[in-house]
Amino acid sequence: MRYTRVSMGGRGVWGRVEDDAVLLLSASPLEGDPTVIGTVPLDEARWLPPVVPPVFYAVGMNYRRHIEHARLLGDKAGVVPERPEPGYRANSALTGHGTAIVKPAGVQGRFEAEPELVAVIGRILKHATYQEAQDAVFGWTIGNDVSARTWQHADRSFWRSKNSDTFKPMGPWIETDVDALAQTTTLRVNGRVRARFPTGDMVFDPFDHIVEITRHITLRPGDVLWMGAESATQIEAGDTVEIEISGIGVLSNPVRAENVRP
Amino acid sequence: MRYTRVSMGGRGVWGRVEDDAVLLLSASPLEGDPTVIGTVPLDEARWLPPVVPPVFYAVGMNYRRHIEHARLLGDKAGVVPERPEPGYRANSALTGHGTAIVKPAGVQGRFEAEPELVAVIGRILKHATYQEAQDAVFGWTIGNDVSARTWQHADRSFWRSKNSDTFKPMGPWIETDVDALAQTTTLRVNGRVRARFPTGDMVFDPFDHIVEITRHITLRPGDVLWMGAESATQIEAGDTVEIEISGIGVLSNPVRAENVRP
Repeated sequence: MRYTRVSMGGRGVWGRVEDDAVLLLSASPLEGDPTVIGTVPLDEARWLPPVVPPVFYAVGMNYRRHIEHARLLGDKAGVVPERPEPGYRANSALTGHGTAIVKPAGVQGRFEAEPELVAVIGRILKHATYQEAQDAVFGWTIGNDVSARTWQHADRSFWRSKNSDTFKPMGPWIETDVDALAQTTTLRVNGRVRARFPTGDMVFDPFDHIVEITRHITLRPGDVLWMGAESATQIEAGDTVEIEISGIGVLSNPVRAENVRP
Repeated sequence: MRYTRVSMGGRGVWGRVEDDAVLLLSASPLEGDPTVIGTVPLDEARWLPPVVPPVFYAVGMNYRRHIEHARLLGDKAGVVPERPEPGYRANSALTGHGTAIVKPAGVQGRFEAEPELVAVIGRILKHATYQEAQDAVFGWTIGNDVSARTWQHADRSFWRSKNSDTFKPMGPWIETDVDALAQTTTLRVNGRVRARFPTGDMVFDPFDHIVEITRHITLRPGDVLWMGAESATQIEAGDTVEIEISGIGVLSNPVRAENVRP
């Protein structure tokens, strides 16, 4: 199944994607068994982030080639982690499939896209075993961890470098039936392939992270865990950035410059 | 006015505190003009965090004496910030007035409470002036930024050191009518005063932070901004920790040890 959320009259409505339509749902599939209450043609859908997570987890350095690349650039974070350690992103930065990534007027230097596999949690979970962690994932979606590197290096936290408005496109939907760690992630800018890597080449996989998180923290339905990327790709205003994960879908967003107020 | 949320039959319900009762409300006061739909005696209320924020901001080093203390302990973060820089906490760590702070079985060394003033945002806000920032604060509450220092120093992020379950008591209510920067914060452990400082002795005040955040990020009703503390106080299982901010109220939480599973 493919579940998502679309904007209907300014409100977010859950939907199930089938063929060329979004079947609108009476409630969240994370909270029970919703009924179909309407339909929207796929090409008229206004995509929202497929879930607004209670908590938005993100894994930083989780692909070996990304870590080596960061180390070559002098980044102190460029060491292979010895255990799973999540960080956080902010829901305020989320935006849907097809909407613009806005490059802030104040951003100089490297402004980059990172293509990430995203796990969506489906149940309440604490002290999980690896098997329980596997069973607790409701489905998988795609995230773009847009990052302004000058801010990332200048600031104490990732608040603006990774969480400015529109910096976290997610979607287009949550795929529930896919072997997510046996897929290929491809990033294209204006149709040209700029990155391609196997989803499963992680230092610690999503279930390792869920086991570790739930030693201390209760996970809840809708929580998301962004799994990191193998590489980052420069993007500019005017570009269109597409992230495809085989078996899941394509997340596409144009990039535009911020309109500066006079 | 004093607004809060209480647990009624397992659900969270908004309320307004008047004299010795919580008047239950039909909706969030952040979203309009709710009506009174019931009442609960104050001493029977089961307190929830007074708001579940869309985004949970926290300011780290914001009182000069705290910064000096951290520097003496060899903390690299012990430098006076040159500009407002928020970080994030996770909603999963929130708990209400009167509920237990659970000290995890794995926590060794310093386990500390930090008494913090909390600003609650009341409107949608971007590119705010200082005056607009002042007008956008709906009210003020109290937070306890419980921290496990060994984890804080060992980990890349604050995920478990500051965000383990129950590590973020907040409440008991949101006070809308108080000059929050002209008050006194007092922390007591088992009735004994362990810290006392003026709320207003900040490096950057809440409105400075709101101006800076909204240069890049849209704030929304219910977002909270925890403003940091002047000092941290060791707490142990069996203690009761009370944080009073004059003009707002008292946030009180017992501390207990985690029940380790056999």
